[in-house]
Amino acid sequence: MHEQFNFMIEVLGTIAFAMSGSFAAMQKRLDPFGVIIIAFITSVGGGTVRDLLLDVPVFWMHDLRMCSIILITSVVSMIFKSLEKNFQVTLFIFDSFGLGLFTIIGVQKGLTAELHPLICIILGTITGCFGGIIRDILLNRIPLIFRKEIYATACIIGSAVFLLLVKYATFTYTFVQVFTILLIVAIRSLAVKYHWQMPKFYDTPNNSEM
Amino acid sequence: MHEQFNFMIEVLGTIAFAMSGSFAAMQKRLDPFGVIIIAFITSVGGGTVRDLLLDVPVFWMHDLRMCSIILITSVVSMIFKSLEKNFQVTLFIFDSFGLGLFTIIGVQKGLTAELHPLICIILGTITGCFGGIIRDILLNRIPLIFRKEIYATACIIGSAVFLLLVKYATFTYTFVQVFTILLIVAIRSLAVKYHWQMPKFYDTPNNSEM
Amino acid sequence: MHEQFNFMIEVLGTIAFAMSGSFAAMQKRLDPFGVIIIAFITSVGGGTVRDLLLDVPVFWMHDLRMCSIILITSVVSMIFKSLEKNFQVTLFIFDSFGLGLFTIIGVQKGLTAELHPLICIILGTITGCFGGIIRDILLNRIPLIFRKEIYATACIIGSAVFLLLVKYATFTYTFVQVFTILLIVAIRSLAVKYHWQMPKFYDTPNNSEM
Repeated sequence: MHEQFNFMIEVLGTIAFAMSGSFAAMQKRLDPFGVIIIAFITSVGGGTVRDLLLDVPVFWMHDLRMCSIILITSVVSMIFKSLEKNFQVTLFIFDSFGLGLFTIIGVQKGLTAELHPLICIILGTITGCFGGIIRDILLNRIPLIFRKEIYATACIIGSAVFLLLVKYATFTYTFVQVFTILLIVAIRSLAVKYHWQMPKFYDTPNNSEM
Repeated sequence: MHEQFNFMIEVLGTIAFAMSGSFAAMQKRLDPFGVIIIAFITSVGGGTVRDLLLDVPVFWMHDLRMCSIILITSVVSMIFKSLEKNFQVTLFIFDSFGLGLFTIIGVQKGLTAELHPLICIILGTITGCFGGIIRDILLNRIPLIFRKEIYATACIIGSAVFLLLVKYATFTYTFVQVFTILLIVAIRSLAVKYHWQMPKFYDTPNNSEM
Repeated sequence: MHEQFNFMIEVLGTIAFAMSGSFAAMQKRLDPFGVIIIAFITSVGGGTVRDLLLDVPVFWMHDLRMCSIILITSVVSMIFKSLEKNFQVTLFIFDSFGLGLFTIIGVQKGLTAELHPLICIILGTITGCFGGIIRDILLNRIPLIFRKEIYATACIIGSAVFLLLVKYATFTYTFVQVFTILLIVAIRSLAVKYHWQMPKFYDTPNNSEM
């Protein structure tokens, strides 16, 4: 049952990021194959980097389900596109859920590999953020992670809370999973709604590139 | 003999992409070492990602021949440069052949690893396209794959035809290889000549980045 | 003792690149978590690609010391930032030392894996340069390696001299290490000070992207 719940999380995250990638690619006017490729990279990018770092088999190479889900999601997004004009909110919601779902999967894989909690947080952040970073680099956008309100910060906080609750709290594992995923979505949503930003460093006058 | 033919394909693809990378780097006015580095990355990029995903030894790490071929091709391209001014056509021809040759190598490696045909098509597309994508990102160009006429689409069609012919047709394996490589080159060339494009999605008015 | 000296080199290189990444991220006005992420990627990027290529465990996954050092260095850089306005020189010095230190580590790992000297030079160059390349791509700067005076060239020369001295000279190993690291720093520093550049290829008139 546990196994099944984890798989359901992975499927939801995959759908969320495939939609996020598809919409971003359609915004940039890519052709249908380009949309599918960007959807694929956005979905599997973070998990692929994580699996390469862990030196475990890359999750989508021997499991046709993920590729099929991404393919179907892309096609549905392209059809849905002609009905729905407002991408901003849709893209945002799916991106937030994908972020939360994938971050927790990443932390869990780190725990399974018996890595130090700090490394688990890094793996969670990589799993959550890298797909979106690669998507933005390929589409020639400034990576979302570096121009927006709190983004990676949500992953880091969510990962840390997950590890603390798993270790010290008496909640069921499934509750902790759902709670921290929603926590990440909540932090990200509230951050965007109320324009929360971390304090930034001011430009120095001698800012010209060396 | 089969083995030798495969090696010949790999050498030709390596030369084609090393030339494509060298010319693109010279266009951007990189110095000779920069040209060699870009030639190297363009040539081995796709195959490196493929081998990392398959978790097999990276093909150029234990085989000095590929690195030597790239080095010689770069130097020859730099000398040839002073004689030949028109890069457009040259770059295009080499890019197309590299695309066809590497795509089929990628599909074959997927078959050898006994992966599902859909995953083989993905591996073929990665092997064919990723070197060029990384080259364009490093040279700060919008990746060719996303701004031009049919490109990745040619890889996907070529890979699919290859798999169908290998499974259901009675042609010799070598014939199927040569045929699908030329098919990819033909699709790409005709697409550029006649400005074939896949239908694209229109910009929505609310296109500003979220 | 040898082991300890190698570890000290790795620590110094990590600190140097973490500082270089932190300062570059602060220049781009990232928030503190963004600064830490860029510092991390700049520090471990080159070595991570090297370890993936060599198919050995990624060096920072099972060693908490590197992550801690990067975290502390980032925080110190952010505090130091409010005192020190001139990033140019600081960034440059740390970048040069990181380049020298990491290049030699990369060559050594190649030798340990009993690879051909040419492949060792490539690994050294990757270890030295890739962290900075990824940093610049993420920060949307033209990769330093491709717009500046001699950069990768310094890695290639340093790696080659290291291999020659290890093989043919009678100096102690530690002396050869220190000498070639300082050689790379010297080449890079003199190149910037005196605007050394490799000869470049001129733009052709038909330079428009194909």
